[in-house]
Amino acid sequence: MSAASSVTRKHLFHLPEGVIYLDGNSLGPLPNAALVRMQEAMRHEWGDMLIGGWNKAGWMAQPARIGDRIGKLIGAPEGSVVLGDTLSVKVYQALAAALAMRPDRKVVLSDSGNFPTDLYMAEGLIATLGQGHRLEVVDPEDIAARIGPDVAALMLTEVDYRTGRRHDMAALTRAAQDAGAVAIWDLAHSAGALPIDLTAAGAEFAVGCTYKYLNGGPGAPAFIYVRPDLADTVMPALQGWLGHDAPFAFEPAYRPAQGIERMRVGTPPVLQMAALDAALDLWDGVAMEDVRAASIELSERFIAGVEAACPDLALASPRDPAMRGSQVSFRFEHGYEAMQALIAHGVIGDFRAPDIMRFGLTPLFLDTADIDAAVSVLTRVIGEDMWRDPAYAKRSKVT
Amino acid sequence: MSAASSVTRKHLFHLPEGVIYLDGNSLGPLPNAALVRMQEAMRHEWGDMLIGGWNKAGWMAQPARIGDRIGKLIGAPEGSVVLGDTLSVKVYQALAAALAMRPDRKVVLSDSGNFPTDLYMAEGLIATLGQGHRLEVVDPEDIAARIGPDVAALMLTEVDYRTGRRHDMAALTRAAQDAGAVAIWDLAHSAGALPIDLTAAGAEFAVGCTYKYLNGGPGAPAFIYVRPDLADTVMPALQGWLGHDAPFAFEPAYRPAQGIERMRVGTPPVLQMAALDAALDLWDGVAMEDVRAASIELSERFIAGVEAACPDLALASPRDPAMRGSQVSFRFEHGYEAMQALIAHGVIGDFRAPDIMRFGLTPLFLDTADIDAAVSVLTRVIGEDMWRDPAYAKRSKVT
Repeated sequence: MSAASSVTRKHLFHLPEGVIYLDGNSLGPLPNAALVRMQEAMRHEWGDMLIGGWNKAGWMAQPARIGDRIGKLIGAPEGSVVLGDTLSVKVYQALAAALAMRPDRKVVLSDSGNFPTDLYMAEGLIATLGQGHRLEVVDPEDIAARIGPDVAALMLTEVDYRTGRRHDMAALTRAAQDAGAVAIWDLAHSAGALPIDLTAAGAEFAVGCTYKYLNGGPGAPAFIYVRPDLADTVMPALQGWLGHDAPFAFEPAYRPAQGIERMRVGTPPVLQMAALDAALDLWDGVAMEDVRAASIELSERFIAGVEAACPDLALASPRDPAMRGSQVSFRFEHGYEAMQALIAHGVIGDFRAPDIMRFGLTPLFLDTADIDAAVSVLTRVIGEDMWRDPAYAKRSKVT
Repeated sequence: MSAASSVTRKHLFHLPEGVIYLDGNSLGPLPNAALVRMQEAMRHEWGDMLIGGWNKAGWMAQPARIGDRIGKLIGAPEGSVVLGDTLSVKVYQALAAALAMRPDRKVVLSDSGNFPTDLYMAEGLIATLGQGHRLEVVDPEDIAARIGPDVAALMLTEVDYRTGRRHDMAALTRAAQDAGAVAIWDLAHSAGALPIDLTAAGAEFAVGCTYKYLNGGPGAPAFIYVRPDLADTVMPALQGWLGHDAPFAFEPAYRPAQGIERMRVGTPPVLQMAALDAALDLWDGVAMEDVRAASIELSERFIAGVEAACPDLALASPRDPAMRGSQVSFRFEHGYEAMQALIAHGVIGDFRAPDIMRFGLTPLFLDTADIDAAVSVLTRVIGEDMWRDPAYAKRSKVT
């Protein structure tokens, strides 16, 4: 039995007929259970319990309870992860807390492979602080050399959203801490994609989203991790009432809750959380090591197939699977048009400027037969050349 | 025909048998259409369109499109309201933008009737700014006298969450602006509760939530309004990629989008928005003036009934309906226990410390018969006295 066939649970997803979905790294597909769970949450919780749902249906406890479920997938202990808001907001919270921990240092170090919103949020925070911080963005391979005594926070995304290139989280965290800096990791393309051990890495903060490999649905909430020894001392910049020690006492002044709860802000997105909760059931009984083995099997097979049949496509991801996340990207001059044509033929990946064709390899709902079929369609599309006609991409967009 | 009977559309809501729901000011009940719409959004948008839903199903445009629908209910022109995040986060955005507009002033003025999270978020922002701002909280009736040349921003909630006391938004906005301050209004207990004319009031910023009178469901997103003449110049503190002028260009530096779009932050909560969108259909063909007339009819009837039958309960809301929002509160020494008993008998209101029994009068799903029945149950509960037994409240909690 192949690694891939041991973890696939395709029948638990709603996957349209005739589609091979290689974009689960951008938006995971619909788990059938999420549809059922949402009906239940709407009809029996919101509908029947009304305001009582906050306690009776456990809505108030959702962010921490579901946080613990995600914690298990990223090597975080119970009580160290909480759900809420968007990833952008969670980046802001983590970075604000990190900079407050190193008031004498002014550099936020990141790399050009970071997702833009992380950099934008850092810029916005720095402008708001008005304390002379600066964001320094270097090439991913130059990060280690740049870490130094002026760096307050090292803020990186573990897996590059374009190329799938993976940082060595443990080594860079150690290097940052050796230089006295605080480490913040964005796990957007890691959570549910590969084994992560936050405890072993020792990072102070981590954030991530749940609508990619965790299949929580469009707009599913983000999560934040704070290392347990810091959770009672970090002072939140976003002091929301649900991060208050006694939210229903309606006290006039803010007192942070104990532990990770202080990183909550406002009212949690209860309905989105219900869908996410059902989606997380898919991970019960699945070892992340097996998912990783399957992901590597699928991606190696995909790379070999594409390289054999489409010499115009150049691998943009690291060749060593240990250095990749769970996606594979190829550079191709006509990548945008080719991706449109591919999608029109039922193989869904996506495109990132200027020339990246991106494919997510997600073993929970893809098997080797899907990969072979995708390679075959890609080979045909690239060979056909019809997409080189400028009218084509436009036409195929409506499909 | 009474004012109330002209706007009621009870049959469009899922309301549990035997329950009279007087807590729509905290969490609106489930509109039947939201259940249907959510299934459609999950199955046909997320399920079938997958990543394509961002364009094909209009997810990317949702925050502004639904913002316009809310704009119609609060007197805001098209393109001036956008959805997203929680109310706490929207308060932070509005206040950060306001303080940046008045760099030479250091006072944020608010009142003790403001919802605590607004005050907490202001405290957190002030600490983050580290520029010597201070939050000054006075009694609601002292606001007008305190407005002065040191005030950077006047930040108030129009309708008090405990008592329903309503500020004169137009007059206080004018007073603030005459003194050179920026006005921020929290419309959490106003939107969908009473006619609001933001354009006439001239306020610079407004924020609000959609899970109360707008029935968007638990965790439905918040909204923010920026006065159109300012929308292209305010600089967001939370610089998220979806507030970027070209989010899919993935540029390394932030450039704010034109207009209200710059107040977006991260990925919108697509599923919550679908429920909200369906809930907003309930307002089609309903004039807010008629809803207001019905609300006043219901609340006057409720007050008269309670005062006649329960002399121990003291009206905590203004007696003049023009000075109230769409809720009525009574002070009662044993309010907590009495509210538990009331809920056990199917009349759902809520309690706010130290002694406030709070009742929302929401004409879309309540009529005069409901009010009469609620008064009769309340009269019986208060008369029975069984709730004075300390064991009672505990027992009734499980109901």
